[in-house]
Amino acid sequence: MSMHAFDAAIALAPQEAGAWTGATSAAYGNMIGPFGGVTAAQALNAVLQHPELLGEPVAFTANFAAALSDGEFTAHARPARTNRSTQHWVVELRQQGQTMMTATAFTATRRETWGSASESPMPEVPRPGDVPAPNRSGRVEWINRYDMRFIEGGFPAAWDGADHGDSRTRLWVRDQPARPLDFASLTALSDVFFPRIWRRRAKLTPIGTVTMTVYFHASRQQLEAMGTGYLLGQAQAQAFRNGYFDQTAQLWNEAGELLATTHQVVYYKE
Amino acid sequence: MSMHAFDAAIALAPQEAGAWTGATSAAYGNMIGPFGGVTAAQALNAVLQHPELLGEPVAFTANFAAALSDGEFTAHARPARTNRSTQHWVVELRQQGQTMMTATAFTATRRETWGSASESPMPEVPRPGDVPAPNRSGRVEWINRYDMRFIEGGFPAAWDGADHGDSRTRLWVRDQPARPLDFASLTALSDVFFPRIWRRRAKLTPIGTVTMTVYFHASRQQLEAMGTGYLLGQAQAQAFRNGYFDQTAQLWNEAGELLATTHQVVYYKE
Repeated sequence: MSMHAFDAAIALAPQEAGAWTGATSAAYGNMIGPFGGVTAAQALNAVLQHPELLGEPVAFTANFAAALSDGEFTAHARPARTNRSTQHWVVELRQQGQTMMTATAFTATRRETWGSASESPMPEVPRPGDVPAPNRSGRVEWINRYDMRFIEGGFPAAWDGADHGDSRTRLWVRDQPARPLDFASLTALSDVFFPRIWRRRAKLTPIGTVTMTVYFHASRQQLEAMGTGYLLGQAQAQAFRNGYFDQTAQLWNEAGELLATTHQVVYYKE
Repeated sequence: MSMHAFDAAIALAPQEAGAWTGATSAAYGNMIGPFGGVTAAQALNAVLQHPELLGEPVAFTANFAAALSDGEFTAHARPARTNRSTQHWVVELRQQGQTMMTATAFTATRRETWGSASESPMPEVPRPGDVPAPNRSGRVEWINRYDMRFIEGGFPAAWDGADHGDSRTRLWVRDQPARPLDFASLTALSDVFFPRIWRRRAKLTPIGTVTMTVYFHASRQQLEAMGTGYLLGQAQAQAFRNGYFDQTAQLWNEAGELLATTHQVVYYKE
């Protein structure tokens, strides 16, 4: 049995304490450098692999300082503070001594409490099997690593530059081939939405994500119970202004449980 | 003319390069330790004061590792990466050699581009002058530093523990006494909402913010043009589960411009 491309992509080889060697993956190549979702997953993986890890990820922020060059990088993860049941992490990815990504993570052991996600119910949408898979292959390699079934707000049919007044996208998505969901793949899936400005303006504007935050509402147990089901992803911008726009997104499982909410800021040039 | 309490609270005295001494402020005291919004503003202020700063804040994430003890702390800010027009920062606040807060900031010089915030229009609400100010003083000191005029979802009238099914709050808010808005005060104002679980369940559950992210959609010029006007704040949770809930919020000026969007994760105990 061969390793899934995602597991190969996020694999880290231990160096000295708190440092690992990773490498970019051609399977997740983007226009310039690798797909940011996988780079973020690699940074989180340095925390997940750390022998001092306490608990599970609750929040994670990755800042994209520069596009990784193809090849190896070093990941440094440091538990900046360890409390009784919570831990705060500082992470950096470096190439040739230069910082390529900074990140922080918050991990915790979670207890069962009263809970509710009724304030962000999953929208009513057709089931994954009733939504056709796009029959084209992606213009960049990483797109081919995901099964994306657009329900609303797919890639513009025409790049006409018109202001569509709305940037919302809804899609069913999972790894391709299917792979059991975990915190690393959920992190990458949080970055799977194409740039909101392309959706809003139907114009191939140059863009780059500069920061992404993921809040994990699901426990490891919940993720494991999900297996290889689809996630419903919904993403929308709130503001485009002076070279940067934001994206706010939700990811539910097929049962309608909210697994993660995620936000990012993206640079755009025009 | 005496200094505004907020300016006194966030003041930093330079030590060696990249390090400053700050102190907690009794004027912004909370139940345990200081109001987190001011601590976050202090961390951002270390970036704003740094001689190598490039541009203006676009995104800022603060992680609350432990409640600050009353007294002095050291703020360390480091430009991890400087590009042509963008910069990535790593910040830590320390007391007695212990990490109390980690933070990252993204700053940039911004250019005028096509822009729109029409996807998060300000809700229709009465003007600030038509909303009564609460006539009680806060149970914690920092509350008295803000003029909060609740339009919807104010403090529960009765702590009856009922599930109100909704956690949304809308209020007009500004510093008290009024103070011209800037990036530091906008950061503190992003944390001004009382805990969503109190709103949702009308129960005084112990809570603590563990991480907060602020996206600045406004430029320095826009903030300066605003003067001492009110901000309309809107906050709501998306999910409460196993000891943590999230909060997603927007802040508009009186003219309806979206100045900031902000998210946080909050611990709750029950």
